[in-house]
Amino acid sequence: MKAIVTVGLKPGVLDVQGKAVANALVDLGFGEVADARVGKVIEIDLKGQDRDAAHAKVKEMCERLLANTVIESYRIEIA
Amino acid sequence: MKAIVTVGLKPGVLDVQGKAVANALVDLGFGEVADARVGKVIEIDLKGQDRDAAHAKVKEMCERLLANTVIESYRIEIA
Repeated sequence: MKAIVTVGLKPGVLDVQGKAVANALVDLGFGEVADARVGKVIEIDLKGQDRDAAHAKVKEMCERLLANTVIESYRIEIA
Repeated sequence: MKAIVTVGLKPGVLDVQGKAVANALVDLGFGEVADARVGKVIEIDLKGQDRDAAHAKVKEMCERLLANTVIESYRIEIA
């Protein structure tokens, strides 16, 4: 089974990497860019077939390792 | 309009960050983790309303800045 975890900074947290990307795109001539935000995506291959159990496990992984929940939020998809 | 770009290493390219995440998860007791791969997700706010034009522009952004197409592939969603 595959889990896809998307981790991004919470709204309101300054995303300097995103600002740098947006500025670089504008400098390259992409004037239609208003803003950009950068996050991480983590694809995890999991043994086992129980989707609900997998979701619970991946949530625990996010809380313990994958996301800094003080400043980051995460979204889990089980594929 | 919002574009979501997901950038990841091509299959076959060694993902050391993914390996580190997978090993760390196993060490934390998540023995069901077989593998992990880490990529980037870039959310871009775009001015304008034409979806096809936006897709073409974002593809150009990927080729010129957002992805290293030698080792990375990218996927574009226009939301």
